[in-house]
Amino acid sequence: MSAESDKPILIVGSMAFDDLVLPSGEFPDVIGGAATYSAIAASLFARPRIVAVVGDDFPASVISDLETRNVDTSGIEKANGKTFRWAGRYADNLASRETLKTELNVFADFRPKLPPSYRDSPVVLLANIQPELQLEVLDQVRAPKFVAADTMNLWIDIERPALERVIKRVQAMVINDEELRQFAGEHNIKRAAQAILSLGPERLIVKRGEYGAMLFDADGIFFVPAFPLEDEVDPTGAGDTFAGALLGQLAQLGTVDGGTTRRALLTAATVASYCVEGVGTTRVRNLTVKDVEQRLAELRNLVHVE
Amino acid sequence: MSAESDKPILIVGSMAFDDLVLPSGEFPDVIGGAATYSAIAASLFARPRIVAVVGDDFPASVISDLETRNVDTSGIEKANGKTFRWAGRYADNLASRETLKTELNVFADFRPKLPPSYRDSPVVLLANIQPELQLEVLDQVRAPKFVAADTMNLWIDIERPALERVIKRVQAMVINDEELRQFAGEHNIKRAAQAILSLGPERLIVKRGEYGAMLFDADGIFFVPAFPLEDEVDPTGAGDTFAGALLGQLAQLGTVDGGTTRRALLTAATVASYCVEGVGTTRVRNLTVKDVEQRLAELRNLVHVE
Repeated sequence: MSAESDKPILIVGSMAFDDLVLPSGEFPDVIGGAATYSAIAASLFARPRIVAVVGDDFPASVISDLETRNVDTSGIEKANGKTFRWAGRYADNLASRETLKTELNVFADFRPKLPPSYRDSPVVLLANIQPELQLEVLDQVRAPKFVAADTMNLWIDIERPALERVIKRVQAMVINDEELRQFAGEHNIKRAAQAILSLGPERLIVKRGEYGAMLFDADGIFFVPAFPLEDEVDPTGAGDTFAGALLGQLAQLGTVDGGTTRRALLTAATVASYCVEGVGTTRVRNLTVKDVEQRLAELRNLVHVE
Repeated sequence: MSAESDKPILIVGSMAFDDLVLPSGEFPDVIGGAATYSAIAASLFARPRIVAVVGDDFPASVISDLETRNVDTSGIEKANGKTFRWAGRYADNLASRETLKTELNVFADFRPKLPPSYRDSPVVLLANIQPELQLEVLDQVRAPKFVAADTMNLWIDIERPALERVIKRVQAMVINDEELRQFAGEHNIKRAAQAILSLGPERLIVKRGEYGAMLFDADGIFFVPAFPLEDEVDPTGAGDTFAGALLGQLAQLGTVDGGTTRRALLTAATVASYCVEGVGTTRVRNLTVKDVEQRLAELRNLVHVE
């Protein structure tokens, strides 16, 4: 693992204000959104190009902070109106959460438009947004080599045909276990995985929260442990951080073979574990490659047998 | 891994009839019980000595079958009355179950009495029974080198002081994640583990069902993946199978160092995965060391990185 490079990775997704009710307190107006988390994580390894929309209430300082960390923000549209807002309350054990409010705001009329300089991106992360928008972004990229998409329960419920079109066009799906089971109508994880893989992607990455992640690919199945944390603070964005760190590494390395993907997954799980240790992006924003390397060694030890 | 040896392992626990309502159908009068599953699994590696009680309705053929697989059954008491019976209904996805009926029957008045030949057992598995009975067994063993105990939610609820006395006297606790959290009053697994370890055991093994298992010991934390099954039939006894296979190996190898324990845990997870593939003990009863070795290689590949 080496520090950030200028290898581009295109990321589309939400930028948002989150109002978080956590066991440790209430945190309104936290900067969040799938694109934000993913870009910060990816910027440890590559040069993210963000496609997103923010309202006129979004702090310019957040955009300039992203610029200082090697993120191309020229694809962030500033629209009149309020930024997308999500409010959620976590259970005391952080294992579940309920959505209190979703305000689409400027996201309601968003039509992603890629700056010309973005169109040659070889690696693309379609973070969680409406599948139609993921497709619109994909249509504007010239000849991407590796595209991964995330999604959520809402789109499985109300936008399934569009979501299936997305799945058919990507090399990898990144999805959490509950959503995978919902999509497949099947609890057994191995059979549920087939419901995605049979549509075309070579790879499926199943996020399992505190249980880690699983990769399904041509080489079989791979288990990624989660780093056991003593002080969990806020799981918001951990999945986006994981996906951003994974795709950022694949962009940096320029290869997606089985071994590379497996090593990148362990590093991605490490980066995601830091995310949970702070409210919002506070911990990942202050993360160094050295931090990641240290904890990665501990993570690998969790499955090491002499 | 080599085939069964004459190294003794003492196992105390229930022998039972289970009435199972599974997604695949209703199965009454299935031979079960923690001691039964544990002994069959342990017999792949060592010579189990069972301490248990059965009623006069328990088939003699089951006892003689155990004898043919290297199990010492001289400590199985035949009492007048009915054998312990448990009835349970599993959810369609097998991820949860409800107890429909628990009939203690001959277990109600059971006082374990070890045959003299059992008293020198170096390795002891106190499978899930009332903690007072686990203590009575332990009092009758001369100088055991390695004792592991399992327990269940019921004893945490109603027999906590006795359970704590058990925990203080064993080298390892084997417990499932829900029970660990219940015991500790703490969701975070790392902090919950401390609630057990602070009472004295050098090792804690947390069973996590389809997510595998975790070991906490002086060397840190170790993750054991679960073998991903396509056809899960009946999870009954998988945890007991896991514990029996683990302790059977430690008895066989005569050492419990960190590396040995880690390797034994992977093999134990492999044996337990077979258990789930058949109703009751049907699959584990027909298991060979060669089957186990084959699947163990696949299991190890799940966490292998080039």
